[in-house]
Amino acid sequence: MEDELPEIRLKAIGAVHNAIKDRDRRNSENIISEIVLDPALTEGLEGLEDFSHLIVIYFMHRSRKPFPLKVHPRYRTLPEPVGVFASRSPDRPNPLGKATVRLLERRENVLKVRGLDAMDGTPVIDIKPYIPGLDSADDATVPLWITKS
Amino acid sequence: MEDELPEIRLKAIGAVHNAIKDRDRRNSENIISEIVLDPALTEGLEGLEDFSHLIVIYFMHRSRKPFPLKVHPRYRTLPEPVGVFASRSPDRPNPLGKATVRLLERRENVLKVRGLDAMDGTPVIDIKPYIPGLDSADDATVPLWITKS
Repeated sequence: MEDELPEIRLKAIGAVHNAIKDRDRRNSENIISEIVLDPALTEGLEGLEDFSHLIVIYFMHRSRKPFPLKVHPRYRTLPEPVGVFASRSPDRPNPLGKATVRLLERRENVLKVRGLDAMDGTPVIDIKPYIPGLDSADDATVPLWITKS
Repeated sequence: MEDELPEIRLKAIGAVHNAIKDRDRRNSENIISEIVLDPALTEGLEGLEDFSHLIVIYFMHRSRKPFPLKVHPRYRTLPEPVGVFASRSPDRPNPLGKATVRLLERRENVLKVRGLDAMDGTPVIDIKPYIPGLDSADDATVPLWITKS
């Protein structure tokens, strides 16, 4: 690289509490999770309850090292492996997860959400409001192996 | 907190190259950027060119410390400040940005994209394929101050 790539230090702001104890669990669409944030950050959550959906960025602490550069995406029938950045595999250089979830309720520093694809105990790094248009792409296309799962 | 919140160490996988030199620049919808990734990771990008859109997670290295817990979102007319997590302010506990961008071209370890809201020189942490349904929420609602910008 032309420049040295920097190291980045973050500190978790909270943790996920839910029923997902198995790293290889498949569907999380209907799973209810509670995200318990550092109570010192409660004031920073004010107004979040006016959004129906959130973006959660979390650290996949159970990801495997070393990560492979090519992967066979799970639950897909692909003849050849694809690059890890063309997949949502948790085993990636920086194992961050990104989920769009429905906010069901906020009680002070606790967010009750539906559809969070993260294991129980997962450290949470950031919460953002989901904004249609900014976060969605209506004209997006994907390869056939995504749609034929 | 019931448990100590963990520190998380990441290493940038690449950097943004574009014309955004000003931290307070507003619109980036039509800005073209090049994301230059570590050449050692090129194999991990294979297959990404079959997606029209990507999710880019980046480290907002010019964010301000200490961050405020309440903010006046930029370019919005709000009588009262909102919590930082109800905003997309770069000045947040863990200053990660998340953008949905159009992939125009991949040349080996270089991704040419449109719509990346990050300054020139921004460290990139992760690249994921954008998957409609997983990343979008068709029934999402937002408060009036978002739509009346």
